[in-house]
Amino acid sequence: MRYRDAIAVLLVALCLPIRTSSVTAQSLPSPEVVADQMIRRALMDRKGYAWLKELCDMGPRLSGSPQSYRAIEWARAKMKALGFDRVWLQPVMVPRWVRGEVEEAIVHLPGTSRAVPLRVLALGGSVGTSTEGMQASVLRVSSFAELKTHREEAQGKFVFFDFPMDAGKVPTFAGYGEAVRYRVYGAIEAAKVGAVGVLIRSITTRYDDVPHTGVLFYADTLKKIPAVALGWQSADRLAELLRRHPQLELRLQLSSRTLPDTLSYNVIGEIRGREKPEEIIVVAGHFDSWDVGDGAHDDAAGCIQALEAAELFLRLQLQPRRTIRVVFFINEENGMRGARAYARRAAQKEEYHYAAIESDRGAFTPRGFSVTADSVLIARMQAWIPILKKAGIDWIRKGGSGADVSRIPNCPLKFGLVPDSQRYFDVHHSANDVFEAVHPRELELGSAAIAVLTLLLSETDLHLPNPVSTH
Amino acid sequence: MRYRDAIAVLLVALCLPIRTSSVTAQSLPSPEVVADQMIRRALMDRKGYAWLKELCDMGPRLSGSPQSYRAIEWARAKMKALGFDRVWLQPVMVPRWVRGEVEEAIVHLPGTSRAVPLRVLALGGSVGTSTEGMQASVLRVSSFAELKTHREEAQGKFVFFDFPMDAGKVPTFAGYGEAVRYRVYGAIEAAKVGAVGVLIRSITTRYDDVPHTGVLFYADTLKKIPAVALGWQSADRLAELLRRHPQLELRLQLSSRTLPDTLSYNVIGEIRGREKPEEIIVVAGHFDSWDVGDGAHDDAAGCIQALEAAELFLRLQLQPRRTIRVVFFINEENGMRGARAYARRAAQKEEYHYAAIESDRGAFTPRGFSVTADSVLIARMQAWIPILKKAGIDWIRKGGSGADVSRIPNCPLKFGLVPDSQRYFDVHHSANDVFEAVHPRELELGSAAIAVLTLLLSETDLHLPNPVSTH
Repeated sequence: MRYRDAIAVLLVALCLPIRTSSVTAQSLPSPEVVADQMIRRALMDRKGYAWLKELCDMGPRLSGSPQSYRAIEWARAKMKALGFDRVWLQPVMVPRWVRGEVEEAIVHLPGTSRAVPLRVLALGGSVGTSTEGMQASVLRVSSFAELKTHREEAQGKFVFFDFPMDAGKVPTFAGYGEAVRYRVYGAIEAAKVGAVGVLIRSITTRYDDVPHTGVLFYADTLKKIPAVALGWQSADRLAELLRRHPQLELRLQLSSRTLPDTLSYNVIGEIRGREKPEEIIVVAGHFDSWDVGDGAHDDAAGCIQALEAAELFLRLQLQPRRTIRVVFFINEENGMRGARAYARRAAQKEEYHYAAIESDRGAFTPRGFSVTADSVLIARMQAWIPILKKAGIDWIRKGGSGADVSRIPNCPLKFGLVPDSQRYFDVHHSANDVFEAVHPRELELGSAAIAVLTLLLSETDLHLPNPVSTH
Repeated sequence: MRYRDAIAVLLVALCLPIRTSSVTAQSLPSPEVVADQMIRRALMDRKGYAWLKELCDMGPRLSGSPQSYRAIEWARAKMKALGFDRVWLQPVMVPRWVRGEVEEAIVHLPGTSRAVPLRVLALGGSVGTSTEGMQASVLRVSSFAELKTHREEAQGKFVFFDFPMDAGKVPTFAGYGEAVRYRVYGAIEAAKVGAVGVLIRSITTRYDDVPHTGVLFYADTLKKIPAVALGWQSADRLAELLRRHPQLELRLQLSSRTLPDTLSYNVIGEIRGREKPEEIIVVAGHFDSWDVGDGAHDDAAGCIQALEAAELFLRLQLQPRRTIRVVFFINEENGMRGARAYARRAAQKEEYHYAAIESDRGAFTPRGFSVTADSVLIARMQAWIPILKKAGIDWIRKGGSGADVSRIPNCPLKFGLVPDSQRYFDVHHSANDVFEAVHPRELELGSAAIAVLTLLLSETDLHLPNPVSTH
């Protein structure tokens, strides 16, 4: 393929305005032409896929973990090596939760010596048990309402929230919201009725036995009780055992604990705009992950797509009209501290964020962009669909963006990339979320889609209702 | 999930017209209601996925192979067990090609004893070599045009068509057409200039070393020369070796051969229409596959989706207004004999095919339906999009249907299911095409999409321009 690369470079060199170190006012070729080049280069070069491999090889990146620091240093060095105009780390204090070595759940059947091990994963933020572990019987309920009607029985027991994620909905995220309540609020509701621990059924659409973690909340006024997710098959097993042996006891041992907050960083890199450098377009993902698997889809891939979307301008030697700023937010999973720190700084410096795009729904084939913006602006952006369709984007619709960019103040256009969702909850927050679960073309199409949207945002004017330029 | 199933069955029992063995004129609930049920049941029950496993466990199904007969018997028994009104086998004489045991390509470097093995797969229909194999030098060209300019050099050599499938296009099929010419016509063009054999670069977007086969053509007036596909990495290796050692020789040994035609079958099952039984809606896939991998995506999955689309009516105890006929065509890959026999029979019996739908592009997330039909009808069907969107279908567009149903005479509406294409050429015609490469939700969404389209075709009237009812 070398001869093709050579031709591509030649074409770029001959036809397109060269990006030089000094700012020029030269406009780019038509978005149609640049979009075609961006898409082709992303799909053919597969650079983002190679970077994803480098990043995933370092392991998962839970906030404050040793791997997270190695990855942050890698990201800073990568942005510098790629030729970003400015690269910096923004300091952020992050929570530091560690899973520890012991994570064991065993069912003991009454009147027998039979012990049935279950596959569990402590929920993120869970307190541990004592070193010897804890043993109690189990109350199975399928909802908070059912827990309330059985509140007397919960005292001194584990509560098992046996609520299966609804796999009958076509967009898988539609089933996530109602299921995730038990993960997030289960420990609070169970502590209210005197339970000693919480088990949830993993939130997934894959019926294997790999448990899926994720953040939980505690209330300061209530006892903090240990909480774990059961693998889908382990949850089936426990439900079946409870039917036959309601008096069974579960023994749980967890060594998870929360250490003092620690210093970490958002990683930020900028390509300075040639005409409106004070108008910032953020392209982003979150850099932290859970501590199992590689955190490949969630959200190494989103960061890589953001990075590559910006880098495609450099690769094609094109300087954007507005400033493109890549942000890898830290601590999305268990604190949102990176997003908060970024938003605070933006407010303090009175920065004008023209737009922000986040990728945090897995690196599957892109389908559309969800956008938090004025309806008039969304209507205007429909004119871009024929160009976005080149990268497989069928629609721009009103909706949420991403957890991190949603907090940026003074930003009239906040986008979330919406990919196909069928496989996302197979891997989400689990040991299944590894590099090998990411498909190179699907990843690269996402990079290209974000690059094309960034191009349109950078090179055209939407006549925003209240442009607040502060420089 | 048992309680949910029970509720679903109860709801169906209470609310919907029950399908009885006698034909009734009772119409179904609104398509919106039935569509929701079909989609939910497909995604929750995953029956098609379980059938796919049974089918793939029998191995690949090349026309005339022992596995193909086992699979045909399985399919007939399955349709009967599921309660189809009529199930039959349509006899078809099919070609019988066998790969044989020996398939070996080794590069010998001039002046050394070094031998470099390459991964190859005989193209479907290729003649073998003599038992001792054949050895010759290699002429590498990147196109038929280049072969013509070097025609003098080709005499007595292997021709290596080093044409990489273009991975820079977003719909992967867009790169297939120009690459597949070398597989289909390479042996003819090479024989014209006196070459002794043909090597092609596998047609794939995955850069591993698993070779991809597929049919080739010979001309009766030219010598039939052996032809193989090289794994992508083996093709790279050969290209590099040829740069350094233009005089290298390749030794090829193939035991592939063509046996006499043999009797096989299309498998056909029908659910009789309650009002217009003489108007047939075909839902189809092709049942044969290549002889490597499981032929899971190509096209076991398409057959399973067709089967499940029809079976969803039975599962919901709904009798369609028109007759739904499931057809598993034999011999799509290397002869199209099943499709021809079916078309002949349809013409002889003057059957009226109201519509036909084929799934033969892999069981990935469905995106749309491509349809061969009058533009006026296509415009009318746009009104169905809101219902089809429930199953993830975004569009109906004019275009090709499927190789098999395209031949059905007197059929005004011929559809092809168009799924996401990013991963298709990873597996197409190769050992990568196994059951594990099919995702349950993606498969089931395709079943649901076909079921919903079949429902709309069955229960509504499009006022076709020339309905020719012959019964």
